Amino acid sequence: MSVTAPLGFVAAGVHAGIKASGDPDLALVATVDGVPVAAAAVFTQNLACAAPVQLSRAHLAVSGGRAAAVVLNSGNANAATGGAGLAVAGEMCALVAAALGCAPEEVLVCSTGLIGIPLAAEPFRSGVPAAVAALRPAGGAEAARAIMTTDTVPKEATATAGGITAGGMAKGAAMLAPDMATMLAVVTIDAVVDAALLQRSLQAAVDVSFNRLTVDGCTSTNDTVIVLASGQAGVAEEAVVAGLLREVTTSLASQMCGDAEGATKVVRVEVRGAASDQEAAAAARKVAQSQLVKCSWYGQDPYWGRILSELGSAGVRLDLGAVSIAYGDHVVSRGAVEVDHDRAAVTDHMAGRFLQVTCDLGVGDGTWWLLTNDLTHAYVDENMGTS
Amino acid sequence: MSVTAPLGFVAAGVHAGIKASGDPDLALVATVDGVPVAAAAVFTQNLACAAPVQLSRAHLAVSGGRAAAVVLNSGNANAATGGAGLAVAGEMCALVAAALGCAPEEVLVCSTGLIGIPLAAEPFRSGVPAAVAALRPAGGAEAARAIMTTDTVPKEATATAGGITAGGMAKGAAMLAPDMATMLAVVTIDAVVDAALLQRSLQAAVDVSFNRLTVDGCTSTNDTVIVLASGQAGVAEEAVVAGLLREVTTSLASQMCGDAEGATKVVRVEVRGAASDQEAAAAARKVAQSQLVKCSWYGQDPYWGRILSELGSAGVRLDLGAVSIAYGDHVVSRGAVEVDHDRAAVTDHMAGRFLQVTCDLGVGDGTWWLLTNDLTHAYVDENMGTS
Repeated sequence: MSVTAPLGFVAAGVHAGIKASGDPDLALVATVDGVPVAAAAVFTQNLACAAPVQLSRAHLAVSGGRAAAVVLNSGNANAATGGAGLAVAGEMCALVAAALGCAPEEVLVCSTGLIGIPLAAEPFRSGVPAAVAALRPAGGAEAARAIMTTDTVPKEATATAGGITAGGMAKGAAMLAPDMATMLAVVTIDAVVDAALLQRSLQAAVDVSFNRLTVDGCTSTNDTVIVLASGQAGVAEEAVVAGLLREVTTSLASQMCGDAEGATKVVRVEVRGAASDQEAAAAARKVAQSQLVKCSWYGQDPYWGRILSELGSAGVRLDLGAVSIAYGDHVVSRGAVEVDHDRAAVTDHMAGRFLQVTCDLGVGDGTWWLLTNDLTHAYVDENMGTS
Repeated sequence: MSVTAPLGFVAAGVHAGIKASGDPDLALVATVDGVPVAAAAVFTQNLACAAPVQLSRAHLAVSGGRAAAVVLNSGNANAATGGAGLAVAGEMCALVAAALGCAPEEVLVCSTGLIGIPLAAEPFRSGVPAAVAALRPAGGAEAARAIMTTDTVPKEATATAGGITAGGMAKGAAMLAPDMATMLAVVTIDAVVDAALLQRSLQAAVDVSFNRLTVDGCTSTNDTVIVLASGQAGVAEEAVVAGLLREVTTSLASQMCGDAEGATKVVRVEVRGAASDQEAAAAARKVAQSQLVKCSWYGQDPYWGRILSELGSAGVRLDLGAVSIAYGDHVVSRGAVEVDHDRAAVTDHMAGRFLQVTCDLGVGDGTWWLLTNDLTHAYVDENMGTS
């Protein structure tokens, strides 16, 4: 169901001709009647952001946070494609607007794929009418499939509370194909929500979902999360809206981490006892993005010395006499030396698909957690070339 | 010759019994007469620094920048070993001091190997006397060999100017064995130099040599560079001293990058046109430490889109209309789009052992460069486990 689970949305996924494989490569999510509804988005902070990011940002500003549709293509990121790329993104929106009867600035656009390759407009001239013709309330699954790059499974989520339903789809990417310009997500909800509240709730949801996912510290040119609120299920309290968006985005982020096909492990890195949440986040990032530590997870090696070394060079305060490092429930180091622990239990934990690493810095109440993966031969294989 | 090339130094390398392999694992560099001379050092900034780092730092402070010897072991980093580790480092210095007839605080100590494993004192009780007995003016090569971990070749360098000679040895590590607690270097010079000038010259030399080497962004617990000045070749101008130290450390850093056995490429990343040197350095680090970019180098794929994406997310100012990216002498992207270039020549460049990547941000005069490597299957193999 994904994005079409909430009342008031239709979707479609078709093959427009961007991917040589013949796989679906064009997705469309729209309101049932093509009229604009409240919309909000979070975009990549990359200065070299892609044409669709630039255009969607501009459209939201011009429309005052309203949109009737989101058009998405896979197979080409339309990033680093200059004025020509912006023109194609513009044509994608214009084609959708003409077919739905809304204004072009009421259409948002996303692309995902390789960077720096010109994107042809031609496939959209037949593909967009085909996608509009295919729009239907059960089309969410097809849309989710059409935004996949090297994802092995589509990512969809729904959540319901207080008579309100939210849904979402995402492609990612993360570890398995970061050169594919990494993540896109479209979230829908059927509550009556104004654009400002929607933006606030989306940002809060992203902060505890997609922004907790780090695979290689790379911020892509195309990362985009868009939410549309149809209003068809009536008014809802902000807490309900925020909770539903958090639930959907958290599920999608978790699915992305789990589908990192270069990876063999999903690792949750938690830092406690930091001087502040900011310092906890910095320490968690240093550990989660360490090539050395990630290789040791791949090898199922509980080499805590590397983690201590990363904490010590994270630029944050820590008490060496109190710092502790645990795998699963087993503290393996405290006070910067090894402590007695159940080695067999740690070995079992390291052999699992999900690892939990908990570091206590021993200086305060700051906490943070991140999801990440191990660094594997398959990651190197995936990223050695673009062909 | 390495550290014994300058007048006034002797060295030795022996097997003390730390490495199970029987390879040399204890090195000693000393003044010929065992009397202290001017000394300076640069240490890791890691808060979880190893016992030998803590002790050497304290010894230099107490002695006011004088030392008669440096004792170094490979096979165990003596890091995260608590009070017991400090006691062993102290005993290493005391054993050398007793044999040479100097004060313990006039001996500096370095260790390299695995983190978090207790280091036994026993091997040093027979090993230090053996090393002292073996000290000789031609012992530099043996010392350089005794500090190797998974280095495939010893790293030695000498330089001469104005009647002054400098020499040095290093182990590193960098990409091939960062879990071995990464780099150590001892540099000697026979000029008359006071400790303050020596410290200033060493820091300047390290800033353009070892500090320009980034492999995985990991700052080890043990990184140490020590310089001793015997004064036996007479007085030298500061520029001569600084130049010689720069020459020796640059050669050692280059050898370390070239011996990164997990790597197939040495890559020089240069950023120009930044708003400041600091911003150029930040951009160069973002590119040089990118797992994605490093994998593309391994695959000999001139995928400039990834480099642009890293520059755009480096947190520095850039002019997207003017930014350019070149491989070797070939500009492949300008103004954030691909430009015509000689593809065959770029393919040839990518196939070589040495890659030059030049990025111009188009906003100022700031420049920086770094040496790094590619990210390979062998790197993952090397770092999957500690055994």
